[in-house]
Order: sequence, then structure tokens, then C-alpha cells
Amino acid sequence: MSTYSTSPSTGYSGHLPAEGAGTVTVLGLGPMGRALTGAFLDAGLRTTVWNRTPGRDRELLDRGAAGAASAAEAVAASEVTVVCVVNYDAADAVLRQDEVAAALKGRTVVNLTADTPARARDTAGWAAAHGIRYLDGAIMTPTTTIGTPDAVFLHSGPADLYEELASVRQALGGTHTHLGEEPGRAAAYDIALLDIFWTAMAGYAHALAVARAEGVSATELAPFAQGIGAILPPVFAETAADADAGTYSGEGNPLTSAVSSMAHIVHVSEAHGIDAGVMRAAEGMARRAIGLGHGEDGFIRIAEVIGRR
Amino acid sequence: MSTYSTSPSTGYSGHLPAEGAGTVTVLGLGPMGRALTGAFLDAGLRTTVWNRTPGRDRELLDRGAAGAASAAEAVAASEVTVVCVVNYDAADAVLRQDEVAAALKGRTVVNLTADTPARARDTAGWAAAHGIRYLDGAIMTPTTTIGTPDAVFLHSGPADLYEELASVRQALGGTHTHLGEEPGRAAAYDIALLDIFWTAMAGYAHALAVARAEGVSATELAPFAQGIGAILPPVFAETAADADAGTYSGEGNPLTSAVSSMAHIVHVSEAHGIDAGVMRAAEGMARRAIGLGHGEDGFIRIAEVIGRR
Repeated sequence: MSTYSTSPSTGYSGHLPAEGAGTVTVLGLGPMGRALTGAFLDAGLRTTVWNRTPGRDRELLDRGAAGAASAAEAVAASEVTVVCVVNYDAADAVLRQDEVAAALKGRTVVNLTADTPARARDTAGWAAAHGIRYLDGAIMTPTTTIGTPDAVFLHSGPADLYEELASVRQALGGTHTHLGEEPGRAAAYDIALLDIFWTAMAGYAHALAVARAEGVSATELAPFAQGIGAILPPVFAETAADADAGTYSGEGNPLTSAVSSMAHIVHVSEAHGIDAGVMRAAEGMARRAIGLGHGEDGFIRIAEVIGRR
Repeated sequence: MSTYSTSPSTGYSGHLPAEGAGTVTVLGLGPMGRALTGAFLDAGLRTTVWNRTPGRDRELLDRGAAGAASAAEAVAASEVTVVCVVNYDAADAVLRQDEVAAALKGRTVVNLTADTPARARDTAGWAAAHGIRYLDGAIMTPTTTIGTPDAVFLHSGPADLYEELASVRQALGGTHTHLGEEPGRAAAYDIALLDIFWTAMAGYAHALAVARAEGVSATELAPFAQGIGAILPPVFAETAADADAGTYSGEGNPLTSAVSSMAHIVHVSEAHGIDAGVMRAAEGMARRAIGLGHGEDGFIRIAEVIGRR
């Protein structure tokens, strides 16, 4: 709704501007909730905050946020409520109370809490059953990016609702992508992207441990590690089409060659007394793909072997 | 030795230029050995090739390479022998034959075969015992980069020998780094960097499988996956100093928050019937670090927990 436009001249919503325009409630004042609130305040939105554990709002109240005695009071203060708590158990514990649901009726919830696609769908269903407009979302970048061009947000849910929330998006900064109406879609992307990130970070942490055991410091390894990091995006791009088409060219780098490297890594690691469970599991996937006859294929064949068809 | 300088006017080696200048032997004609040979031929070096399985040299002979009836004959034809086979078992099987060792005496071996640091050290010791000058190395980039500016080579061994081989390095293209005299150092970097690469690739393959199960194609995910890939190099750089100093700031992203994401990934994956062994192992490392009291630390604390002090 244009109520949330930054320009009062854009459209007419039927609400008095002083009442609805640019009001937002933030539920959850962990590091990310505080960052979101800071961005809303910086953008001049009238922002109400609430946190299950009291006392987290002090600095935000000093900066101009309004406090609330209860979650119900907090959500009643704004047309849009942004939820950012640890997971959907925590989100549901707040939202699915009779007085909160009643206060949210006819209003909008933007749930930026991270969890599974199934939980996002379930909460979207609950919202629909209670006459609450619901957009699900995921924040892909750290707290420090919020309000800056570096922030990355993914959204799924009704396209018209997404469009209406332009001023909220603008206050948060960065890039926003609407991935479709299916409410679980933002969480699905989130899970897949975090899968890449945390697996890579586990690989980096492990590599640092192996390097140290070999007398190589993290600072010595880092420039080369950055070089490896830099070749990942083009490799991701090149192999994506293969994965969709089901054609996996292993030319120059077949699975049989990858497992040879992986076995070396496991061996060096364990010879130093360093757990190699992550690489053992990865090597296992690759060896299983070879056992199924795909040894001459490229590594991404693994996605098909472990996935469901 | 200046024998391998590209400019005949640089230095005097005591060899007749026509005999020694720019001669190189390549042992091993897999995809990488063939790429190395191609680069030497393109650079105008007199190149002799040999492969355990015959017939792999045909195209290279057409391009001007010299064949050899045996490994001993091949290494006798050049001042420098470059070895690039599947692993050190294969390299040793060729090099550690009496007639080959005898032919190599006083000559140089550059071993670009990938294996463990311990194997590199062992082969360096064998070479020293047989009067063979030995440089160990690792090739960090695909076959297609060889002879181009994109190739990345790491070397370890005697600094003076590394310096003498300028024309060989120049023929191979790309960037070359001498990591020190300790012969296992190139292999140590290689192992650590491949650890990062293959773990990240395992994460990507798994993410593609999870995305597909959620109705998201690889091509849809790829642009965002590239975004995740792009944030890895700065994260690697930022956390390296922490790892060396033993100070792990988890501000904004503590281990307790990482494991929450990791658990979601495992859950979604397994709920779709997709093996989550890699992420289970990674989550296990993180939970063990939390159990040891490091929950508020950053993720790279894991390197210390799994490593040896």
C-alpha cells in the first residue's frame, strides 16, 4: 500500500498519513533486529520495538524508537510488523497468541526470520487463516550491511504486497529480489545459499588447521585462499547449466581426479590428528558417484546422485 | 642454470647452447602433462615426452615433441625433467628405477605431481641421495590455464634452482611463487587450498540438490550462489589474522548463530531424502567448539578446536 511510500504525494491509501505512513514495528532485538531498527530510524520511519527479553531496546529508544509493553501493543502501533528472531519456533511463540493475531488482522507481517521453507509455508498458512497479510523473507548479508548498498534481501509471497512495501525495502537499503508468490521460496534459496557458505567456511577452517600443522600460518595461506575463493563464482556459473541439463562434462577434471585430491586431504589431515569428517563425507559422495558409473563426469554430477529425481 | 634462460646472451653455463638450452622432458601425458608439453612446445623448447601407457604422445609428436623408447631415454634427452603423473606412487614407480636415477644424476627434476607434503619430502630426500637436483611444485589451476596468464604454480625447494628455471616457468605462463626451501611446502599449500576448493564444491553440489528438491533450478540459484562465492575471499582475508592471533570475534555472527543455520540445512536436506553427511560433520565441529565454551566466538575458532596446538 502506498501508505509506506516515502513520498506522501505518491498515491492515496485511504489512511491518514500521520497515522499509517512510514510506521513499522520490529519484533526481535537480537543483533539483526537491532540493525533493522537502526535502518528504519535512519530512514525516518516511526518505529516501534519489542523483544521477549526486556532491556534490549534501551539504545534504540534513545535513538527515537517507541517501546511497547507487549507484543500485541507493538504490532498494533504500525501497519507493518517486521519479525526477526532466532527461528520460527520463536516467531510462532510471539505471533500465534490470540491477542497478537487479533491486533495483526488486516495488517502486514514481513517475516525475516531464518528457518526452513516448510516453516515459512506453515506460517503463511496461519497468517492467511487469521486475515494477516504475509510476506516471507531472508537476509543474506551480515548485520553491518543493513541500511547500506551491500545488503541482500530475498522475498517470497504476494507480488502486490511486495510492491506496496517499497519504502520499507528502501529503508533497509541494498538489493531486494522477489522470488515468487510461493511463500517458502525465499527460505529455499536461503537454505541453499547458506549451505554453500557454511560448507565453504568449514573447508576454510579445516584448511587453516591442516596448514598450521604443516607450519603454514593463516596469513601466509590467505592470499592463495582468496585466489581459490575467486575462482568459485565462475565455476558455480559454468556448472549450473550442466546441473539443469543433466550433462556433466568432466573434461580435464573428472570425478576420478577429484577423489584423488580428496583422499590426499583426508590422509594429511588425519596423519596430523586433525578430524577429516567433512572431507570424508564429501569424498564418500564422490566415490559413490564413481561407483554408479560416473567417474568420467564432472564433480557436479554429485548433485544428481545425492538428490532426488 | 642459465642454460634455461630464454636469452642465449644471459650468462654462460659451460654447455653448448644447441645441446642444453631450452630442453625439457615431460614424464606423464595425462590431461595436465599434455597441457604442460603444449606450453613448452609453444615456447619453442626442445621437448621430449614419455608416458607409461604408450600412444598418448601422438598429437604431441605431430606438434614437434620428441618421443622416447623408455623413461631413462626420455630423461637423458634434457637437462630438466618435469614430472606430472597421478600421484607419487606413480612418480616413484618411474623415477626410482636404477637406469632412470642414473640418467638423472646431475640433472634437474621438477615434480608437479600432486600428493602429500610427506611424499614430497621423501622424494626430495631420494633425489638428494642420488645426486639429482629436485624442485617440488603444485599446479593450482585447470589444464586450460597452462601457458596463459591465469595459470598458478607453487614451488618449494632450493632457491637457486628455482631461479635457474626461469625459462621453464616463463614457458608455462601464469604466476609462480617460491614458498621456501622446505620441499613439502608447495604440497602443504596445495592440500590446504584443495581442501577449501573441494569442500566448497561439495557444498555447492549439495545446495543444488536441495534447491532442486525445493523446485529451484541451478540456473535460478546460480546468480545468488555467485554472490555467496564473491563474499568468501574477503571473509577468508578478515578471519586469517584472527586465526593466527587466536582471537575470534563472533560479533554479529557467533558460532551459536551458525549452528542454527547448519541445523536448518541438515533438516531440510534430510526431510527431502538428501544425504547431509557433509553438513552434519561441519555442524558437529561447530557444536563441539560451542561445547568447549566458544559459542560467542566466530566460526574460525573451529580451526583451533580441530587442529593441534
